[in-house]
Amino acid sequence: MNKYFDICATTPIAKEVLEFINNNHQNIFGNPSSIHEFGQKSRTIIEKSRILVAKAINAKSSEIIFTCNGSVSNNIALIGTLSKGDHLITSSYEHPAILKVCDYLKSNGIEVTLIKPSNNGTINCLDIENRIQNNTKLISIMYVNNEIGSINPIKEISHLTKENKILLHTDAVQAMGKINVDVSDIGVDLLSLSGHKFYGPKGVGVLFVKEATLVKPILFGGGQESDLFPGTENIINIGAIGKAAEICMKNIDSYTRNLCDLETHFIYLLNQAKINYRINGENRAPGVLNITLPNTNSQSFIINLDREGYAISAGSACASGSIKGSQTLKEIGLNDTDMRCSYRISFSKYHNIKDVENLFNVMLKYIKAN
Amino acid sequence: MNKYFDICATTPIAKEVLEFINNNHQNIFGNPSSIHEFGQKSRTIIEKSRILVAKAINAKSSEIIFTCNGSVSNNIALIGTLSKGDHLITSSYEHPAILKVCDYLKSNGIEVTLIKPSNNGTINCLDIENRIQNNTKLISIMYVNNEIGSINPIKEISHLTKENKILLHTDAVQAMGKINVDVSDIGVDLLSLSGHKFYGPKGVGVLFVKEATLVKPILFGGGQESDLFPGTENIINIGAIGKAAEICMKNIDSYTRNLCDLETHFIYLLNQAKINYRINGENRAPGVLNITLPNTNSQSFIINLDREGYAISAGSACASGSIKGSQTLKEIGLNDTDMRCSYRISFSKYHNIKDVENLFNVMLKYIKAN
Repeated sequence: MNKYFDICATTPIAKEVLEFINNNHQNIFGNPSSIHEFGQKSRTIIEKSRILVAKAINAKSSEIIFTCNGSVSNNIALIGTLSKGDHLITSSYEHPAILKVCDYLKSNGIEVTLIKPSNNGTINCLDIENRIQNNTKLISIMYVNNEIGSINPIKEISHLTKENKILLHTDAVQAMGKINVDVSDIGVDLLSLSGHKFYGPKGVGVLFVKEATLVKPILFGGGQESDLFPGTENIINIGAIGKAAEICMKNIDSYTRNLCDLETHFIYLLNQAKINYRINGENRAPGVLNITLPNTNSQSFIINLDREGYAISAGSACASGSIKGSQTLKEIGLNDTDMRCSYRISFSKYHNIKDVENLFNVMLKYIKAN
Repeated sequence: MNKYFDICATTPIAKEVLEFINNNHQNIFGNPSSIHEFGQKSRTIIEKSRILVAKAINAKSSEIIFTCNGSVSNNIALIGTLSKGDHLITSSYEHPAILKVCDYLKSNGIEVTLIKPSNNGTINCLDIENRIQNNTKLISIMYVNNEIGSINPIKEISHLTKENKILLHTDAVQAMGKINVDVSDIGVDLLSLSGHKFYGPKGVGVLFVKEATLVKPILFGGGQESDLFPGTENIINIGAIGKAAEICMKNIDSYTRNLCDLETHFIYLLNQAKINYRINGENRAPGVLNITLPNTNSQSFIINLDREGYAISAGSACASGSIKGSQTLKEIGLNDTDMRCSYRISFSKYHNIKDVENLFNVMLKYIKAN
């Protein structure tokens, strides 16, 4: 596991979460909507998990909606709150699960304004303020950018939204597990999470919906999850995301410290070896390092590392299979040449200094070779 | 496991499927969209599973879309093919993941005709034919009813849809694992499956989309699953549904025989004890028995059985938690009194004659007591 430096793409599952999954898959299978004991055991797992997730992000358990992933949480947050004639403000470097939804919204009569990030990689609150209209219904800004790790000023934006009676959503998929996520402190109305980005399983997400926030269903069925996410609940994965959230909350300070140490050491090694590099983005979540390494070529560099068993990434892994120019790097002003030799290295709670040194030594081979 | 007679609500996971899950959860976690080996291992699992599911239902692998559950497959099939001004024909005893979608479609300018089942529990093809209009775009009829198990004449309906250039969708969630499902033989364009109804895990579904059938995305993101289901793939559950489909296909004949034997024996016991009963629905999938037992009361009868550790059901388990009058029984003409003392007993591949006798003996106690 220690050669895997692509934690922003997905995390391995934490040991305790895996134990939960293995211990429960065989015996807990009833349909939570059944009134018999088989069903009620499943219901209990779901409701316990709801409490754990709520506690981890400082919400009420009634404000936690379980979905199948972060992308679908984002879809529900946007499509479920906006109607024809409404105005949405979001940023131009969001995840496709926001940007592609915007295309759909526009074709359905919703106005969309995209705010460009500054060259430092964060969204400027004033840029948002200047674009608020009478019909602005929702502002959706990602908490932590998935490619460069920059942290956006969500709390500051929430002052704006409260003042102007606008709903605020944040895609916090990349925040959870790297920084503390506190919905009450940052003052959001809607927030998306994804299990597999904080050492939980894939196939489960969360949408936090603040009490009294009206969200229309966009998918229809048996009424599960306050009518917002239909279908028999993915009990085991729901239980597992609760476990992952609990572990995450308990350990976030030590995670953060460790990630900072690893990153600092990696940068120290770059400097010591006099490597020509530039870090993309400021005010970053610990452990997400997007660096430009002139005189390397992303495709061959990543493949060479892969041959040695090391995983890093060029851009995000969200568009199925394709290596495209990074949307984020383009938006923060990188030129094509720099974009082609930029890499995202993301550290995990499982790494230690030795792992980082090993990665660096392998990278060094191919930086020199170029 | 042998006291669980609510297989239509959900199935326990097959041993081989569980082994697959336990063997792979720890080591296979890469994002399938990543180009490095961690990602490509995950991609391989998905594509292997696609081949297995395709083989199990006689489709091409390119026609298999993985979703998060059967309800969402149904949503995509309907919302993704219909536009304002189109006409949909479906039945009045579909699952809520069809009927609730119909309400949404109607509010968006789509005409919907609901066909009532005959008193024997199946949809009459002639009733459909009589309601076809010039703007009929889609017909969606469930393959096997979830409450009474009646099998609808999908193949016969497909002659109609082909003749009239109409798309045909079937919700086959309750068919898979009970009868052979062959998309080529029955001639459908779209078909929904759910992993946890055929001894696979929850949190994974399938939408079969016949080659060249145009389905618009209804959820937006990273382009996964031919742009029809966004979000990082639920790799392990996707792999597991492939395994479940493979086992299901290999054993369907022996499943069917066993389920028929169990059911026949249960009916024999009812007759031998001179119990007053009536079976609801004809032309039923093996193993789904909906019976009216006069002089019992559903709520207390089920609770008494539950106290003895036995799970059967009154109606479906799809509407979260609530015991409502059964939509299906109402549609096939049962009166309120009969509906209140009707039960769905669904047998699994894990049951044997002894299990059925045990269930019968416990039931007998509470039938007599009434």
